[in-house]
Amino acid sequence: VKTVNIDAARVDKGGYKHFMAKEIAEQPVVMTEVLGHYVKSDGIQFPNQDIDFKSINRLTMVACGTAYYACFVAKYWFEQLAGLPVEIDVASEFRYREPPITSGTAALFVSQSGETADTLAALRYCAGKADKIIAVVNVPESSIARESDVVLPILAGVEVGVASTKAFTNQLMTLAVLALEAAHQRGRLTDAELGDYLENLRSLPGILNTALGIETRCEEISLKLAEARDILFLGRGRMYPLALEGALKLKEISYIHAEAYASGELKHGPIALVDQHVPVIVIAPRDDLFDKTVSNMQEVMARGGRVLLVTDQKGAEEAGDGVWETLIMPEVDAFFAPILYAVPAQMLAYYTAVAKGTDVDQPRNLAKSVTVE
Amino acid sequence: VKTVNIDAARVDKGGYKHFMAKEIAEQPVVMTEVLGHYVKSDGIQFPNQDIDFKSINRLTMVACGTAYYACFVAKYWFEQLAGLPVEIDVASEFRYREPPITSGTAALFVSQSGETADTLAALRYCAGKADKIIAVVNVPESSIARESDVVLPILAGVEVGVASTKAFTNQLMTLAVLALEAAHQRGRLTDAELGDYLENLRSLPGILNTALGIETRCEEISLKLAEARDILFLGRGRMYPLALEGALKLKEISYIHAEAYASGELKHGPIALVDQHVPVIVIAPRDDLFDKTVSNMQEVMARGGRVLLVTDQKGAEEAGDGVWETLIMPEVDAFFAPILYAVPAQMLAYYTAVAKGTDVDQPRNLAKSVTVE
Repeated sequence: VKTVNIDAARVDKGGYKHFMAKEIAEQPVVMTEVLGHYVKSDGIQFPNQDIDFKSINRLTMVACGTAYYACFVAKYWFEQLAGLPVEIDVASEFRYREPPITSGTAALFVSQSGETADTLAALRYCAGKADKIIAVVNVPESSIARESDVVLPILAGVEVGVASTKAFTNQLMTLAVLALEAAHQRGRLTDAELGDYLENLRSLPGILNTALGIETRCEEISLKLAEARDILFLGRGRMYPLALEGALKLKEISYIHAEAYASGELKHGPIALVDQHVPVIVIAPRDDLFDKTVSNMQEVMARGGRVLLVTDQKGAEEAGDGVWETLIMPEVDAFFAPILYAVPAQMLAYYTAVAKGTDVDQPRNLAKSVTVE
Repeated sequence: VKTVNIDAARVDKGGYKHFMAKEIAEQPVVMTEVLGHYVKSDGIQFPNQDIDFKSINRLTMVACGTAYYACFVAKYWFEQLAGLPVEIDVASEFRYREPPITSGTAALFVSQSGETADTLAALRYCAGKADKIIAVVNVPESSIARESDVVLPILAGVEVGVASTKAFTNQLMTLAVLALEAAHQRGRLTDAELGDYLENLRSLPGILNTALGIETRCEEISLKLAEARDILFLGRGRMYPLALEGALKLKEISYIHAEAYASGELKHGPIALVDQHVPVIVIAPRDDLFDKTVSNMQEVMARGGRVLLVTDQKGAEEAGDGVWETLIMPEVDAFFAPILYAVPAQMLAYYTAVAKGTDVDQPRNLAKSVTVE
């Protein structure tokens, strides 16, 4: 056990009712911090770290819970931006599956605490097999950091709420920068293109700050969600992991049985659940997959399902007719939209839990850091 | 649209109350048929098909719904037996993700009907990129079969029930034989070892026939499950996809919100859902991961959860104390246990649906073959 110095101001609720609310609100600030750490005026810099993405032909990402969903988003980024095939797995499965690690594989582990037992065991399985071991952690003195070749701190500050919020967004920010670096090194992005992506990334903390303004609407909608016993989340592509994260957050702190599905899988079974008692939350910014997701959403509505559509202004105009509720998000570059859409995932869970009167910061049965199997 | 000749005897309920019950009962027979087709006295034979597993360094498997879970099981087999890295994805995600297909990749598509729209689109994405396209289908005249280099029919006969049962087990049988062939070709199994595995596989239809005897117990337990609104399934490793399949079956035909988790992920969120109202079904034969799963099960019980333990005699003796219900399965070789454990996944769903009085063969909102996006 190590003693870590904690800035006192950072572990105070600072006027918020719960740590989770404070940590949600802190996101624009900690996002700016992590971005400033990795992105300088002349481009991306990983201080004292050496990662050669040209010598790597595959990336394996392993984590648990919310950190796993951050890997899931990043899989899309690395594959689409850098043309680098990515496998993801939950640590408790990965470690016992003993998967073949082929030559040229880098292994990346994401953990807020850096002490997650299964993730650490997965890392140890990869040691000596993977070309490079990379840690994305919030606690740089942690076991996972110590046993890695490259350590990328997410600089989210102390996170007290058991349900991870700002650590998730900063994991995403860090992984986004890493995916851009990989794409640039591998010749998939010119300097100018990289500059454009970085510009979009730099605009995110400001946009996310604006998005925090959905709070009042989330509070209203959550009063209704709190009456549900079961909720489905739907998303496609880069937004599917956000649907998973939204469902996990809701489970963790409101004890409502929320489950996420890739929109296209709905017809292969889960649509049988749909009736007026099961709200369906559809996460769908107006992007290239919007029409496909809307088509799945309309199947839900045709079967009497009540849809909460989380989208932007354009999306609401095109597809908002007949939905139960709409939550309008600010416009954002489609590529990094998953980072912004963490906000409704978090706030809907938060206000639903508040409406139900559960212990938001210390939900039953859960620990902040899972250091046993 | 093609007209397919159907043996009249095969589309009759033959004394069963539902097609699904008949198709569950048919499994030992159709498993024997598919095994006889691919395994001869002198070893594995794929008639008129040429698959060189030595020239392949990676396998991508794509499907939807239950067929996807068959791929998920097969991933463990191919990786552990043949040392061949396998990626799996649901077709609706794969096709729009546009993943990089590296040299030496074979792409395998599983579909009962062979007409699943998303799976067909995923296949077309791989055409020209993958070294070899393999179809595992029940309808060999289907679009997916026609557009593949290698077609492996599963020979399950006509499946009428919307919830797939015998097609799933025969998909698994076919994939098991293919994984053994891959392992043998790649020098991972000697002739003698291959013979032992094939012997285990040959014994499966008989063991599964014995397992059908759990029917009465399933009927009793299902009367209680039918009162639940939410149910969790847990499994680890090769049994995790069976937990997913059990949850999907229950959703499809009983409309109970069942969800599966990898046992080790439970602590990272979903355990917050656990109370006496949410039965937890633990799929855990006495194998090398048994102790780990039991440890997760005990956490559930310590939090007031009611556990149905699906295991074998040894497993029940070791860990059955204090569980709510136990369902005892025959002993089976651990490697192919997922095929056997399809039976409780199917029967618990079937009898729960019967207890609830839902339309088992034609559940609401679902179609047998999903030929649109």
